[in-house]
Amino acid sequence: MDALSRLAIHTITTKPWSLEQACEHYAAKGVAGISVWIEAIEGREPADVKRVIDAAGLEVPALVRGGFFCDPSPVERAKRVERNRGLIETAAEIGAQMIVLVVGATPGQPLVMQRNWVQEAIRQLLPTAEQCGVQLAIEPLHPMYAGDRSCVTTLGQARRICTELDHALLGVAVDVYHIWWDEHLEHEIKTIGERGELFAFHLCDWRCPTRDMLNDRALMGDGCIDLKTIRKWVHDAGFDGWEEVEIFSDEHWATDQSQFLDLIIDRYRGLLEPT
Amino acid sequence: MDALSRLAIHTITTKPWSLEQACEHYAAKGVAGISVWIEAIEGREPADVKRVIDAAGLEVPALVRGGFFCDPSPVERAKRVERNRGLIETAAEIGAQMIVLVVGATPGQPLVMQRNWVQEAIRQLLPTAEQCGVQLAIEPLHPMYAGDRSCVTTLGQARRICTELDHALLGVAVDVYHIWWDEHLEHEIKTIGERGELFAFHLCDWRCPTRDMLNDRALMGDGCIDLKTIRKWVHDAGFDGWEEVEIFSDEHWATDQSQFLDLIIDRYRGLLEPT
Repeated sequence: MDALSRLAIHTITTKPWSLEQACEHYAAKGVAGISVWIEAIEGREPADVKRVIDAAGLEVPALVRGGFFCDPSPVERAKRVERNRGLIETAAEIGAQMIVLVVGATPGQPLVMQRNWVQEAIRQLLPTAEQCGVQLAIEPLHPMYAGDRSCVTTLGQARRICTELDHALLGVAVDVYHIWWDEHLEHEIKTIGERGELFAFHLCDWRCPTRDMLNDRALMGDGCIDLKTIRKWVHDAGFDGWEEVEIFSDEHWATDQSQFLDLIIDRYRGLLEPT
Repeated sequence: MDALSRLAIHTITTKPWSLEQACEHYAAKGVAGISVWIEAIEGREPADVKRVIDAAGLEVPALVRGGFFCDPSPVERAKRVERNRGLIETAAEIGAQMIVLVVGATPGQPLVMQRNWVQEAIRQLLPTAEQCGVQLAIEPLHPMYAGDRSCVTTLGQARRICTELDHALLGVAVDVYHIWWDEHLEHEIKTIGERGELFAFHLCDWRCPTRDMLNDRALMGDGCIDLKTIRKWVHDAGFDGWEEVEIFSDEHWATDQSQFLDLIIDRYRGLLEPT
């Protein structure tokens, strides 16, 4: 099997490129998958998006990102569920295997209560996921986003929602950036994998020092995360899906994206080498 | 008992002020304690520092911050232990009840191994703490600092080091900024309190959105932390020590510090009111 056959890249990683440019460059370098951010296809017909991606011979691990379920108003929460139904349909229409759910957070609301809102919202979305044949992947975010982006901050919390709802189309997205610091990491990856709920594996690195809370992710190898060890745990847990590179970086976005893509591929190949 | 009799302020909170100015203003407003950052007394004789603080009638909950124990080199680690011995002596000389330990982290080193380094360093410091009659308070930092500032990111990890070393002078500093997101927070505070290891309680708030990873802490009430609930847990756990305001904020440092101090006191009084 070719080394890049499980490599996918998130469109946000090469944000300066249009969908067409991303597809063209990824395919030319042998990258097999593209995870599509909704911002990259705004205003476009899903069928048109699918045509572009199919023409490049790429597969689509994920549509990124749904979720953002949290709000004190039940009416607003219902609206957000509805919006996610639309996104799940979009995911199906562009041929995405899953939709990544960043669950949201409302400043000042108790986190336990918010995680209940999330669970209830996902419960309501499962029939749509079934109809569309699209997986839902809960992505825990780093605790530095607990105030306003995600009340789910650990794999354990994501896993417990999956256990409660117990549905074959519901699982977890493991993004090294968010969970690398967690002392329960190995155990959680193993448990989630054994339950068949490890749906996605996202790669980047944690820069030291980090200069910006949103857009200063590092290329694999330029940070402090022990990627090879985490990757081993993920594979030992039975994961054989896509390895998705997801880097938000003002620094890298300002560079030549073609050279950046070469670097990404180079670093990814390095991860595959035996230690 | 006067409402401010357990209120202390960290010198870093009013960074533009000299030690003299901080003492004068805190005392004039009825604040009873001052926690002293080493940066605020650099190059000064501890006896001189003590004289200034005593003259203002203030007490000193803590010298802030020792620690930073982590380094791959055993020789370097030994040097850092030695440096901390000096800081414990300084704490005693200025009349501080405790020294706060920010334990450090080295990018790329396994966190479990680093926590063992920390435990071993603290073990070596306990005799000095005894000789000086100074408490050592391990302060877990937020996981966003796990790369380069603190391999101890949860109260649970700090508590386990205390349990291992089991010494009356070793405990934990609970800073709301670092631990508010932790799902085990209530349980950990209760457990640490019951063991008599809850040494310090630090107050500020988490701004949404946070614009800077270091110097964008919010004044109590301007962020998303449920301070009254956490404070209740801390007091229910038997804590009757200082309530220390520790805010790093470029925004607040740029304002009139006397007005800022008034705001701090006002917000602190608000926390004391029944819900």
